[in-house]
Amino acid sequence: MPKLNQNFLNLKQNYLFIEISKRVNEFKQANPDADLIRMGIGDVTLPLSPSVVEAGKKAFDEMGVKETFRGYEDSGRGYDFLRDAVSGYYKSFGADVPADEIFISDGAKSDSGNISDIFASDCPVTVTDPAYPVYVDSNIMGGRKVTLTDFDSYDAPQNGIVYLCSPNNPTGEAYTLEQLQKWVDSALKNNSVIIYDAAYEAFITESDKPRSIFLTANSRKCAIEICSLSKTAGFTGTRCGYTVIPKEVMLDAPDGLKTPLINLWSRRQGSKFNGVSYPVQRAAEAVFTDEGQRQTREAIRAYQENAEIIMNTFRDCGVEFTGGVNSPYIWFVCPNNMNSWDFFDLLLTKANVVGTPGEGFGKNGKNRFRLTSFNTKENTLEAMKRFKNIL
Amino acid sequence: MPKLNQNFLNLKQNYLFIEISKRVNEFKQANPDADLIRMGIGDVTLPLSPSVVEAGKKAFDEMGVKETFRGYEDSGRGYDFLRDAVSGYYKSFGADVPADEIFISDGAKSDSGNISDIFASDCPVTVTDPAYPVYVDSNIMGGRKVTLTDFDSYDAPQNGIVYLCSPNNPTGEAYTLEQLQKWVDSALKNNSVIIYDAAYEAFITESDKPRSIFLTANSRKCAIEICSLSKTAGFTGTRCGYTVIPKEVMLDAPDGLKTPLINLWSRRQGSKFNGVSYPVQRAAEAVFTDEGQRQTREAIRAYQENAEIIMNTFRDCGVEFTGGVNSPYIWFVCPNNMNSWDFFDLLLTKANVVGTPGEGFGKNGKNRFRLTSFNTKENTLEAMKRFKNIL
Repeated sequence: MPKLNQNFLNLKQNYLFIEISKRVNEFKQANPDADLIRMGIGDVTLPLSPSVVEAGKKAFDEMGVKETFRGYEDSGRGYDFLRDAVSGYYKSFGADVPADEIFISDGAKSDSGNISDIFASDCPVTVTDPAYPVYVDSNIMGGRKVTLTDFDSYDAPQNGIVYLCSPNNPTGEAYTLEQLQKWVDSALKNNSVIIYDAAYEAFITESDKPRSIFLTANSRKCAIEICSLSKTAGFTGTRCGYTVIPKEVMLDAPDGLKTPLINLWSRRQGSKFNGVSYPVQRAAEAVFTDEGQRQTREAIRAYQENAEIIMNTFRDCGVEFTGGVNSPYIWFVCPNNMNSWDFFDLLLTKANVVGTPGEGFGKNGKNRFRLTSFNTKENTLEAMKRFKNIL
Repeated sequence: MPKLNQNFLNLKQNYLFIEISKRVNEFKQANPDADLIRMGIGDVTLPLSPSVVEAGKKAFDEMGVKETFRGYEDSGRGYDFLRDAVSGYYKSFGADVPADEIFISDGAKSDSGNISDIFASDCPVTVTDPAYPVYVDSNIMGGRKVTLTDFDSYDAPQNGIVYLCSPNNPTGEAYTLEQLQKWVDSALKNNSVIIYDAAYEAFITESDKPRSIFLTANSRKCAIEICSLSKTAGFTGTRCGYTVIPKEVMLDAPDGLKTPLINLWSRRQGSKFNGVSYPVQRAAEAVFTDEGQRQTREAIRAYQENAEIIMNTFRDCGVEFTGGVNSPYIWFVCPNNMNSWDFFDLLLTKANVVGTPGEGFGKNGKNRFRLTSFNTKENTLEAMKRFKNIL
C-alpha cells in the first residue's frame, strides 16, 4: 500500500478534546443520571443574536430565488461586504487593516492548522507552552521541529515562525502593548514571522491590553493575525473566522529572492478551499453592525460575570490562578499539585464537572487545569459549590 | 525571513479559474456593455430548492434559541442526521456505505486538496489527463511526483495514489461498471489507493455507468470516494460535501505495520478542521429527503436539457465532443484545432461567451475546450447561436 506521512507517527495518540470526550462518554454510560456541568472544551452556550439569525435566514431566502442566488465566490477569500465589515471592526479599536488583506475562513482552527503548509519543512517553529494543541500538532504533521518557550520569553527563532495567542488559551493571560511590542521587536530582529491568534480579543477589559497585534509598531512587516467569531459571537457551530495577512510580510525564496506571504496563502487556498457558505458570511456580517455588536457584547458580559464567580471562589479558597479578567478561561494550579488528568477524573467523578487538564496544552500544564466561563450563571454557581466541596 | 515551502515554486503561476476571472474582468472593463454568457467555471445557476431553504432557515432559528443552540460538534465529522441521510442516499442506488465511514466536509475541493497530507512525500501519484487541477496542484505543494495517464489506461501506480473522476471533469465521460472494475483491479494488484471524485454522479443517465466506486467488487479495500452537493443540489455557494473512507483501506507504516487510512484522516481533520456549519448541515439533510430529491432532480433535468441543446448544435456543426449525456460538461475539439487559450479569447471577444480552455486541465486539453450546461435555457440557446456564427 502507499506509505503514510510518517510525521503522523510523532503525534500524541489522541487529540485532547477527543480524549476528554471519550472519558466523559464512558462516565455517562456508567452514570446515566449524573448531572454533568461542562466547563471543558471552551464551547459557548448562549444562542446566536437575533440580528445574526435574521441575517442568516434572509441569506437562505436569497439563495432560494434565482435573481439573488449565489454560487461560487470569485476569490474564495470572502465577500467584500464581510471583509469591509471586519476592516471596520478593526478600525473601531484603532487598528488599520485594509479589506484586501483579510481572508474569510471557516474558523481559526482551519487557518492556524493549514497556514504551516506554505513554510519549508525545515523552518524552525517556536510555540509558547502551554498552548492550543493545533500549533504543535499541525507542525509535527509537516515534519517541523517545534521548540517550546515561555509566554514572556520574547525570544523569536531565527528565520522561523512563532505562534502567540493573547488573551492566551489556556492561561487567560493577555499581553500588554509593551510586552507584545517586545515580541514584534524580537521577530523583526530575528527575521521571523509571528502567527498571532486573537480568537479571544473580544474578552479584553483592561485598556493596556491590545486587541490586535497590528496596534504594535512595525508589526505589518512580521505578523499575521488569525481571528474567529466562535467566542466573539457564539459561532462555534456556525463556523466563521478571518485571517489578516499584511502585504509587507515576506518569506525567503531561493537565490535571495522574497515572496509575499499573502501570495503563497492565496495560492494555497486557491487550490484547497472554496470559501465560506454565503448564509454564514451574511450572519457574520450582522455581528459587526451596531445592533449586532450591542447584542454580542451582552453575551460576552454574561460570560464575564461567570468568570467573576469562578475567580471569587478561587480567591476564597486560596487557589492560585491566571485569566478570567481578559479571558473566558481561568487557569489554575491543581489542588495539592495533583497531576492534571488525575484532577480531571476527580472533578468528573466527585463533582460531575468537566474541565480541561492542563497537560493537554503542554508540559507547563502538567499540574494545571482550565475552566471556562461559557456555561450558564446557574451552572457556574453550582459547579463552584461542588468545587468547594471536593477541596 | 522563514523559508517558503519550495514546492510552491513548481506550481504554474495562476490557478486556472483565477486566470479566467482576470481575463474576463479585463474584457468587461474594456467592454462594459457586452452581454456576457458564462459557461466557464462550472457554477450552477438555479436557486436552492424550497425544502433546502426552509431547513437552513429553521436551523438558524434553532441557533437563536438557547435550548436548541448548537456549538462545536463533538466529532467534527458531521452530525449523525446528515451522515445517516448520506448513507441512505447511497443505499438508494445500491451502494452499501455505513454512516461511520462518512465525513461531512465543506466541499469536495477542500477534501481532495487536503487528503494528500496523510501520504508520504515520496508516494507516487497518478492523475488522468485532462483533470481537475486540484489533484495535481495539491500534490505538487506536498512535493510528490505526479505521473499523468489516460482516462482508460487502467494502470494504477505501485504503492501509490491514483485520482479518478467519473463522470469526468472536464471531459464529461463516465466509466462503465466494467471499466471502473478494471481500475479497482489494477489498484488492488499494485497496492494503490484510488481517490475517486464522484462530484458529478447525479448527472448519470445511462444505467451501465455506476454512481459510486463502491458498486464495484473489492473497492472497499482500495478506494475512498469524495462527493459534493455543489452540482447535485446547487450548493456551490452553500458549501457542503462528504468523503467516504472504508475501514479496510490501509496505508503502510514502518516495520511492515499498517494503519487504517480512516484513522489518519480523522487525526488530520481533528487538528485542522472543526466541522461544517450546523445550518448548512441541516440544509444538506433536506437534499436527501424524498421532497428534496424530487426538487433537486428538477434542476438537474433543466441542466440536462441545456446539455442536449449544446450537443445538438455540435452535432449540426460537426464539432467532435464527449460528455453531455452523463455530465453537465461538454468537452470538444477547438475549431481548426486552435490552441485552447486562443479559442477562449476568440469566444470571449467575438461571441461574448466565457468557457474554459482545455489547457488548464492538462496537456491533453491543449486543443480542447469545456462548456457547461449550467446556464439558463435562454442563454444556452443564445450562446449556441453565437457559437455557430463565429464558426
